[in-house]
Amino acid sequence: MNKRIIVYSLGKLMVMAAALFLAPALVSLIFREGRAFCFLIPGFLMFAAGALCLRFKPKRHKSYAKEGFVTVAFMWIAFSVFGALPFMLDGCIPSFVDAFFETVSGFTTTGSTILTDVESLARSLLFWRSFTHWVGGMGVLALAIAVLPSSRGNDDERDSAVHLLRAESPGPTFGKLVSKLSRNSRILYGIYTVMTLCEIVLLLAGGMPLFDSIVNSFGTAGTGGFGIKNASIGFYDSAYFDYVIGIFMILFGVNFNVYYFLLTGNLLKFLKSEEIKWYFGIIAAAVGVITVNIASLCDSVGEALRYAFFQVASIITTTGFVTADYELWPTLSKTVLVLLMFIGACAGSTGGGLKVSRVIILLKTAVKELRYQINPREVRAVRCDGEPVDHSVVTGVSSYFGIYMIIMALSTLLISFDGKDPTTTFTAVTACLNNIGPGLSEVGATGNFSGFSDFAKLVLSFDMLAGRLELYPMLIAFSPSMWKRSL
Amino acid sequence: MNKRIIVYSLGKLMVMAAALFLAPALVSLIFREGRAFCFLIPGFLMFAAGALCLRFKPKRHKSYAKEGFVTVAFMWIAFSVFGALPFMLDGCIPSFVDAFFETVSGFTTTGSTILTDVESLARSLLFWRSFTHWVGGMGVLALAIAVLPSSRGNDDERDSAVHLLRAESPGPTFGKLVSKLSRNSRILYGIYTVMTLCEIVLLLAGGMPLFDSIVNSFGTAGTGGFGIKNASIGFYDSAYFDYVIGIFMILFGVNFNVYYFLLTGNLLKFLKSEEIKWYFGIIAAAVGVITVNIASLCDSVGEALRYAFFQVASIITTTGFVTADYELWPTLSKTVLVLLMFIGACAGSTGGGLKVSRVIILLKTAVKELRYQINPREVRAVRCDGEPVDHSVVTGVSSYFGIYMIIMALSTLLISFDGKDPTTTFTAVTACLNNIGPGLSEVGATGNFSGFSDFAKLVLSFDMLAGRLELYPMLIAFSPSMWKRSL
Repeated sequence: MNKRIIVYSLGKLMVMAAALFLAPALVSLIFREGRAFCFLIPGFLMFAAGALCLRFKPKRHKSYAKEGFVTVAFMWIAFSVFGALPFMLDGCIPSFVDAFFETVSGFTTTGSTILTDVESLARSLLFWRSFTHWVGGMGVLALAIAVLPSSRGNDDERDSAVHLLRAESPGPTFGKLVSKLSRNSRILYGIYTVMTLCEIVLLLAGGMPLFDSIVNSFGTAGTGGFGIKNASIGFYDSAYFDYVIGIFMILFGVNFNVYYFLLTGNLLKFLKSEEIKWYFGIIAAAVGVITVNIASLCDSVGEALRYAFFQVASIITTTGFVTADYELWPTLSKTVLVLLMFIGACAGSTGGGLKVSRVIILLKTAVKELRYQINPREVRAVRCDGEPVDHSVVTGVSSYFGIYMIIMALSTLLISFDGKDPTTTFTAVTACLNNIGPGLSEVGATGNFSGFSDFAKLVLSFDMLAGRLELYPMLIAFSPSMWKRSL
Repeated sequence: MNKRIIVYSLGKLMVMAAALFLAPALVSLIFREGRAFCFLIPGFLMFAAGALCLRFKPKRHKSYAKEGFVTVAFMWIAFSVFGALPFMLDGCIPSFVDAFFETVSGFTTTGSTILTDVESLARSLLFWRSFTHWVGGMGVLALAIAVLPSSRGNDDERDSAVHLLRAESPGPTFGKLVSKLSRNSRILYGIYTVMTLCEIVLLLAGGMPLFDSIVNSFGTAGTGGFGIKNASIGFYDSAYFDYVIGIFMILFGVNFNVYYFLLTGNLLKFLKSEEIKWYFGIIAAAVGVITVNIASLCDSVGEALRYAFFQVASIITTTGFVTADYELWPTLSKTVLVLLMFIGACAGSTGGGLKVSRVIILLKTAVKELRYQINPREVRAVRCDGEPVDHSVVTGVSSYFGIYMIIMALSTLLISFDGKDPTTTFTAVTACLNNIGPGLSEVGATGNFSGFSDFAKLVLSFDMLAGRLELYPMLIAFSPSMWKRSL
């Protein structure tokens, strides 16, 4: 393990990321809140810590996948630690564990909150919460790489960047998409920014105040889900806003490579994407079932459709915005929502969950296994988008699912020490590991995570980070064997 | 697909299995209940149906794995249909779906009941319920093969028997255990019978009436869990009975091959079995956690230990006997029990669940995948009992787990149409798919399954059969593609 390169890369990233604290400071100045120091101090501390790390110049620049995983994990933790300070300096969240939980929830685009009254927060802090969603959605490292001058580094440094990106970007990788991602980080962030601006404009057009439009768009773009109103998006109670935000949630849940293909005129590749077909198919089916199921609870079928559409879009993309108290919906609707939590959005989007493509591969592997049982001599490859999927990807997806369920089970066990009811316990873990936000029962649409113990909040923070970084970085960074065999 | 051989094998098995109805008829005669006809009529009908099937003599005797799977699935369904008739003829369960559910629950050693007052049933019917556990535990086909003269068949017929046994016996197969099973079916059934007799004697020694001793031992041996008292084993309220039944549940949850190795003096193989170590380790850990967790609710630590031990033994072996209302225990204890439901007993035992060996392989595969992520060039095989596990077994276990979770998710979705609370819905499926018996909330220690709709009961019946037969037979028998490509 090349520890020096981890520390050095961490330093480089922290120095760059410190600039992000300027945005909320500016917001504080605009609104004359006198809270700029809440952001400038953590920003400066992060910059100083980063500069200190930069003094550990690595002897060798060669780095492998493991260094990439560990760097990414520690980068996200460091960012969450410094990002928690504004809440403590302001005083709105005095406990460190609470502030850490809230910031992890922000960066991982989870949107689970420990606040009972978000409306009492200063605007700069509300901005900061939602800004972390926006940055965390596309990735802190992707941003750093997009901003960095690209041709400067030598081969070793480019390798290192690829390892970092691979560790941060979501989804099983088909072919060489990751190296493309690295080349096209800037284009992807460009698309991301333009789409966010489009949403802001459409919300403004509907009469939403500018500040609300910006932060709600941040929450949508990152598929985060922090609201700035206690009733989340339900506060605005407008079909127009519901549909605009709903449609944008779904768009941000699409694999961004698809937009890249569309931009480069590769319409065929877009049409051939099985993940897109399944994604929209699942959304349509879920909206249909829930609309019928809740129709009798609503004033009209149109209203049922509106609530069903918004909630399905919010949950499958793992955003977590809320317009209706789905806690009051029948069990069938709740079960559909919980299943959507596990499925999640497309790979390569800002959303969480298992990812649609993994679910497709799991289903196809299941069918293949059945065929194998029927006729062991008939060997067929799992195919996706018309092409055979590499065997290592297939076994990788199965292992990923296994590890995912093991984390799920162990976390549920640890959270049960808090003694909450089973539904709260189970869905709290589900909501955090899949980066959704709200769950059911005590952590449902109108609830929050403030009732959990510090220990439970730390376990859930781990889950949120593990979910956002797709398990491996967090597990590798915290595996004892990783640190024993020091090189 | 060789349909004729399926029908013919089915016929042969039905003719033989019809004899099982004589046992409860005898019980009815002994207690002078006048209910012998309730068993003799279904027995005769099954015999006649079997004889009819035998007229379809197959042209070719060659059969493959798929014919084995389909035969086993239909055999178990047929047996459950005829086995349901006694309840209807007696009148204690007038509805066919209810009687079918109860019988499937019996044969699959699940122990979920739709009866609210079992104590009102005639003894012959109580005997029949528990007798189905005993037969279903070791397997109907294993019994048939154990009873059949073995050297008579030619190669094709022996092949066919192996396919049937493979489809019925639980657990991922390490090496050639299955072919050994076929050779040693009789020895295994012998061990099973002797162990059952030991339990009966020990219960009698503690003062339990003979009838109760026999049926409770049947329920223990098959890891079934049908009680003959409304309060299950809690009725006897005796530490002696709790410990005897508890220990026997654990013994029946051990891989029977282990007993075979012990009998043949192969102590080394026993000591090397990782599954055994994990199995006892998990039991010890779970008992420890729950004892501490419920100590304050009990009169003494000894009492807490007694209840914890019994319930852990009952759930991990997927028996489902109850001595305490664990519904009143803290969430931590309930979570531990639900996790045990998924783990299940050892492969090759009469218990259900994922099986300890599959959980071990899943965990080891997870560790291997982590290692692979750290260093892709380091390729290590998953090892079990000191030997590398065949790659096809490892991918088979991962696929199995994937299919298992897909069935779990779809069943939960279908059961939610009933509108029960989420905990009831989720644990009802968990309890049936893992062949446990009781779940939590409405289907908890003091509840039952009578509140579900007929549709839900049929879905749960499917789950019980899928769980007992380890997924593939039921899925293959009901897959449309299987029947389309008729040969």
